[in-house]
Amino acid sequence: MPYLSKSLQRAIDELSRLPGIGRKSAQRIVFYLLKLPKEEVHGLAQSLEDVKEKALYCSVCFNITETDPCPICTNQNRDRSVICVVEEANDVAALEKTGDYKGLYHVLGGSLSPLDGIGPDDLRIKELLRRINDEVKEVILATNPNAEGEATALYLAKLLKPLGVKISRIARGIPVGTDLEYSLVCYLCHCQFYGLV
Amino acid sequence: MPYLSKSLQRAIDELSRLPGIGRKSAQRIVFYLLKLPKEEVHGLAQSLEDVKEKALYCSVCFNITETDPCPICTNQNRDRSVICVVEEANDVAALEKTGDYKGLYHVLGGSLSPLDGIGPDDLRIKELLRRINDEVKEVILATNPNAEGEATALYLAKLLKPLGVKISRIARGIPVGTDLEYSLVCYLCHCQFYGLV
Repeated sequence: MPYLSKSLQRAIDELSRLPGIGRKSAQRIVFYLLKLPKEEVHGLAQSLEDVKEKALYCSVCFNITETDPCPICTNQNRDRSVICVVEEANDVAALEKTGDYKGLYHVLGGSLSPLDGIGPDDLRIKELLRRINDEVKEVILATNPNAEGEATALYLAKLLKPLGVKISRIARGIPVGTDLEYSLVCYLCHCQFYGLV
Repeated sequence: MPYLSKSLQRAIDELSRLPGIGRKSAQRIVFYLLKLPKEEVHGLAQSLEDVKEKALYCSVCFNITETDPCPICTNQNRDRSVICVVEEANDVAALEKTGDYKGLYHVLGGSLSPLDGIGPDDLRIKELLRRINDEVKEVILATNPNAEGEATALYLAKLLKPLGVKISRIARGIPVGTDLEYSLVCYLCHCQFYGLV
């Protein structure tokens, strides 16, 4: 006999498939939900359905939006001469949070990764090249600073160069404001005993 | 202008109110949901609604169940001479997982905590006393081994003694199978440098 009722077990199974949630966290969440008023649980469930129902990709920049084109692409106050190329829609969220960037975006939908079978045709690269017109003066390559992100940036730079736009890459190095002691990590195993190897 | 669409922002707000999920985890989950097929997101949302819809408290032991009385209370193979008293329904799940206990349960719904304004009338103590009949030979007090749990166990023991049942408390000490080095924690600050203070 199972030790939890069917509906509880199913909710725990469903929740533990989400990133960062294990079986124990899922169980804790389900028992927490049981103590909430019915309306609040309904609100949570509804908000998850809504995300999937209402969210669509902007046909210009491929950011996630509820209106097409997205509010960033239609905003006339944004600098239309700069396009910042990112891998995923959550990178747009991270950059917008800083409030410092006033240009447009282009979401690739991933990075080049031959090992995972992701080639140039799987990303929105053609769509990016089509956006480069006389108005665009600069393209910032803000792909992640890892092997795949670097390869993608190099590949894009090669394609963009003949189009006569300025190509920038985000600065890489020790994050400003952190302690050097914790920022330098060992190249071999990513431990923090950099000085010892 | 907000940097995320309304439905995304709402889902992140709702998710980050759950225990153990911060804003960053919530954002990661929402972007993960966007990549899932619609049916899977619907399945998750539905399972959360179902928990609240179908789950009810067993009128005998106050465990969470879909049928009243619960499958444990109605199971004729279980030892009806022992009642294990726990604080919450998830404690039942934890004990059932071990598969070692074959008796019945009683869920108090919390522990005595005068600081939080939880007194004996807020717990299902009367209901427990009403269950003590000639059939019941032993009551195991499996409240948590913290100040509130201990106080609750002492209080219950005092009430149960005149009823002539055997009263047991779960064993407390170093968990079997662990390393002594990691089990002894400092009394002052709960750090693991027990030997040094």
